[in-house]
Amino acid sequence: MKLLFITAIASLALLTNSCWENKTENKATELQVIFPKGEKGPAENFTGNAWNTGLVANDTTYNTVVGNVYFEPGARSNWHSHPAGQILIITDGVGYHQIEGQPRQTIRKGDVVKCPPNVLHWHGASADTGMQQLYILPKTEKGIVTWLQKVTNEEYNSTK
Amino acid sequence: MKLLFITAIASLALLTNSCWENKTENKATELQVIFPKGEKGPAENFTGNAWNTGLVANDTTYNTVVGNVYFEPGARSNWHSHPAGQILIITDGVGYHQIEGQPRQTIRKGDVVKCPPNVLHWHGASADTGMQQLYILPKTEKGIVTWLQKVTNEEYNSTK
Repeated sequence: MKLLFITAIASLALLTNSCWENKTENKATELQVIFPKGEKGPAENFTGNAWNTGLVANDTTYNTVVGNVYFEPGARSNWHSHPAGQILIITDGVGYHQIEGQPRQTIRKGDVVKCPPNVLHWHGASADTGMQQLYILPKTEKGIVTWLQKVTNEEYNSTK
Repeated sequence: MKLLFITAIASLALLTNSCWENKTENKATELQVIFPKGEKGPAENFTGNAWNTGLVANDTTYNTVVGNVYFEPGARSNWHSHPAGQILIITDGVGYHQIEGQPRQTIRKGDVVKCPPNVLHWHGASADTGMQQLYILPKTEKGIVTWLQKVTNEEYNSTK
């Protein structure tokens, strides 16, 4: 009887632990993944770990490029611009978007942000939580992207 | 001692049940929602319950319209076409896409499908599982959509 009781308590402890792990996992920093992780963004254009998956390649029918980027916490793009602008659709996590001359903006799951043609911007994850986003580049007959300098820690951490 | 044992067993049963419910919930037919559910698609263009949220409105800068549709199981659009084509990005669930003259295609979370300019197509959820998708309409200066007849049950159920 004593042994049975100890077994029951041990099972209870194990099960509690398993439930706890499951709950912890649900609220963890892992994002809801929709697409394959893809290729790591090159160090000359990104700070930290950003993973890119191309979803729609450029062609002359749609003239639209679409892809997914998963920014790990703290990761961000360099400053850059697009000849026909860019649309970002945030599908999970928390991150930042900044347009040159404007304050850094916090972006979250469900948000949509636009950056107009030939305007400098950068985007990335928050320091603590990753950020997953789709990017849409319209009118690709005008071009795709011009890469510029790194986002400094001061810029990344600034809220003004 | 006996009472303690019964209490332990009862707690174990309760906890097992709670864990089980949690797991069942995770694999349920509810999709991972990213955007607000939006407006119900009108009965003249949709069969069943399809919910539309506009994400990017048409303008002359991006000339791109983006939105999200959540099709409940069995729901689908009418046959329709787009003057500059359409790109669909499936973010959760299982559904169907059919281009006129081609077999019905099964589409799932992570898939991307394109329908060329002025080609008839329809899209919707599978009979058992809902389907959530983003739609991208490029080159909106050419127009948005032309709605046509309903998808019959024979067309919806056909795999040829």
